[in-house]
Amino acid sequence: MTIELPENSFPKVVIIGGGFGGISLAKKLRNKEVQVIMFDRHNYHTFQPLLYQVATGGLEPDSIAYPLRKIFKNQRNFTFRVAEVLSVDPQKKLIQTSIGYTNYDFLVLATGSETNFFGNKEMEQMTMPMKTVPEALDLRSLILQHFEAALLEDSINEQEAHMNFVVVGGGPTGVEICGALAELKNHVLPKDYPDLDLRKMQINLVEGTPQLLSSMSDNASTKAGKFLKDMGVNLWLDARVLNYDGKTVTLHTGRKFESYNVIWTAGVKGKTLEGLDPAALVRGNRYKVTQFNQVEGYQDVFAIGDVAAMVTEEFPNGHPGVAPAAMQQGSHLAKNIIRLINGGEMEPFSYFDKGSMATIGRNKAVVDIGYVRFAGLFAWFVWMFVHLMTLVGFRNKMVVFVNWIWNYFSFDRGIRLIIRPVNRKRGITEERDTL
Amino acid sequence: MTIELPENSFPKVVIIGGGFGGISLAKKLRNKEVQVIMFDRHNYHTFQPLLYQVATGGLEPDSIAYPLRKIFKNQRNFTFRVAEVLSVDPQKKLIQTSIGYTNYDFLVLATGSETNFFGNKEMEQMTMPMKTVPEALDLRSLILQHFEAALLEDSINEQEAHMNFVVVGGGPTGVEICGALAELKNHVLPKDYPDLDLRKMQINLVEGTPQLLSSMSDNASTKAGKFLKDMGVNLWLDARVLNYDGKTVTLHTGRKFESYNVIWTAGVKGKTLEGLDPAALVRGNRYKVTQFNQVEGYQDVFAIGDVAAMVTEEFPNGHPGVAPAAMQQGSHLAKNIIRLINGGEMEPFSYFDKGSMATIGRNKAVVDIGYVRFAGLFAWFVWMFVHLMTLVGFRNKMVVFVNWIWNYFSFDRGIRLIIRPVNRKRGITEERDTL
Repeated sequence: MTIELPENSFPKVVIIGGGFGGISLAKKLRNKEVQVIMFDRHNYHTFQPLLYQVATGGLEPDSIAYPLRKIFKNQRNFTFRVAEVLSVDPQKKLIQTSIGYTNYDFLVLATGSETNFFGNKEMEQMTMPMKTVPEALDLRSLILQHFEAALLEDSINEQEAHMNFVVVGGGPTGVEICGALAELKNHVLPKDYPDLDLRKMQINLVEGTPQLLSSMSDNASTKAGKFLKDMGVNLWLDARVLNYDGKTVTLHTGRKFESYNVIWTAGVKGKTLEGLDPAALVRGNRYKVTQFNQVEGYQDVFAIGDVAAMVTEEFPNGHPGVAPAAMQQGSHLAKNIIRLINGGEMEPFSYFDKGSMATIGRNKAVVDIGYVRFAGLFAWFVWMFVHLMTLVGFRNKMVVFVNWIWNYFSFDRGIRLIIRPVNRKRGITEERDTL
Repeated sequence: MTIELPENSFPKVVIIGGGFGGISLAKKLRNKEVQVIMFDRHNYHTFQPLLYQVATGGLEPDSIAYPLRKIFKNQRNFTFRVAEVLSVDPQKKLIQTSIGYTNYDFLVLATGSETNFFGNKEMEQMTMPMKTVPEALDLRSLILQHFEAALLEDSINEQEAHMNFVVVGGGPTGVEICGALAELKNHVLPKDYPDLDLRKMQINLVEGTPQLLSSMSDNASTKAGKFLKDMGVNLWLDARVLNYDGKTVTLHTGRKFESYNVIWTAGVKGKTLEGLDPAALVRGNRYKVTQFNQVEGYQDVFAIGDVAAMVTEEFPNGHPGVAPAAMQQGSHLAKNIIRLINGGEMEPFSYFDKGSMATIGRNKAVVDIGYVRFAGLFAWFVWMFVHLMTLVGFRNKMVVFVNWIWNYFSFDRGIRLIIRPVNRKRGITEERDTL
């Protein structure tokens, strides 16, 4: 079945994914003589950098998600459909989606990344990922459900397993979630659970390399580690998780933790599509692209953002998987597509590194901007300002701002709601309840 | 298994339900020589009067729900457990819950009400209720999913069924949801769905009696009807739904609608408990209570709020099922329990009617306060003010206020998110997805 779309004789640009890259690209094509079609599984854009605050009760999910239709409500040449794209036939220039087929003149993969369990099925089944809004909500429910369960436990061993958190992966997400958990432990949960001995709540961060935030400067890594330790987080660097049976985590050193709360933030991989030559895939399941974001071997198939690996001298592993890289590639590609349509030559992409940052807790963040590195209160303000400005939508900015002000002065995380409980079997989500 | 609770030699007051009544009661028992135990299925209090705004994308669910533990965080004599109470043994003064047994000295049923389908299994299976936060979220997803589905339809009949709304029940909830749907139709959805002919979106309100808002004044009923008609809602008064097969709604007059969106707000019934004498139940599945809120036939079992029917001359059907009645009964009962403990006499409850109100849309509400009746802009401000003040928690008040300001000036309902899609089978939830 062919998907019915508004009639239009302009070249058809099909964008798969409404993340930072897809949105930038589509916006730049506004008022151009192209027909823009976007597909996404969700009807909203997810502001992934703040998912960890949803998971820890600091923000509403609805303030970091934004309806995609609303972003483009006045863009005449734009059509959106909620659909999963299943495969592509590059010969016929056709894609197959969950709602039917459609053809394209230019196809852009802006599908982003998903959690990488590196083939470890046990980890995939037993640990909690945090890459989508429903996953962050499930994590929020799970954390709170484990405290409710701890209250009912006679066995001290069981109680400790309910209150022991193991976060695997010391990148920005792992660091940020550990910081947020530590703040819950230090400021919030003791008031909610006066009957529990909160000293039993352990937060363990396991990182495979010798340092945290390995994509940032040594200064940032060291500072982040110090901040976390000061807040009571146990760091296990240069340590790998060997296995996890749903209760016992075993590290390669032989150390064991008993924990029902293992959060997996150890890696991502590109979300790829059936039908393209697997030879174009490189490390991290990403498509190797030319400096014009063309997928290797194709003229009219492009990839941007997390799913693309543009290998340059400066970036032998491709650009970092961050919002600015995706956004810059998206808007650059828009210009190149217009050049192609007008019979011109494409121009190579060059990345402008705006720096990187991570937050650990109140008044505690680390920022690298070129050779300028700073940490602490000012870094924390910079982090908040940049995130607030990048959030899509004025309503969302306002609601997040109100929450941050509130959380700061009250030391609170007010959204400790178990709206949809997660079914626990030995502490782990296998099935999920909805009501 | 006995539920472990903090040791305490004071009389034990067990409250089932963390709604308006249960909260008022527990708060009034603060610093008194009693041990207060509250059970609720959820870890949060739901502000039910605003659920319809969650269902229609105007408010975040997290701003009308409030963690119960947070309400009582400094109340020493209070213990909360997330649990479903299954039955009561009034002889042994024991209740059975999903997490074990516990005994009581005073038992208070503050369980509230649930949707009443009046035994009609077809309606229960096929229509959408809206009494809980997850139900309101499912309704929000369903409404949006039907518009996404309408876009993909070739058949005009199918498309219309996706865009036709039938609301059964013309009480405050039915009136409010119709008004909110009309505002979505008039201001929001045309921008989101430029490819759809929004004139096909029909909103039908079916009410069994000759007037809307039958608990309010004639003036309010008439005004509410006029407001709704002006906004494009079709009113079917004195009409009953005979049946609904998932697509065709048939009224007793023979009139038929094709609709995948039937919302059931036609009635509520008390949420009762196994183990009490069914002879104590009266119309609406409520416990008949004395003027001291004692369930008929019991000395130490009480009922307050929606699950109680205190029949007086002025209120031959019991007090209205509204928040103020529950709150007043709750705080009055607290004083009576203390009197009982101190060997005193209980005092009879008397209801102070603060009036009633309903909102239809922007600048449109109806208010009855005693013999003072007004409608329109001022009534709308009164409605907003009262609801904002009644909302639990300062953060929630702020976030709701920000949203209302935003919605008013932008004519928008920004939270059009399908976070957890509802599985549709002929348009109706049978199973539900979580991710």
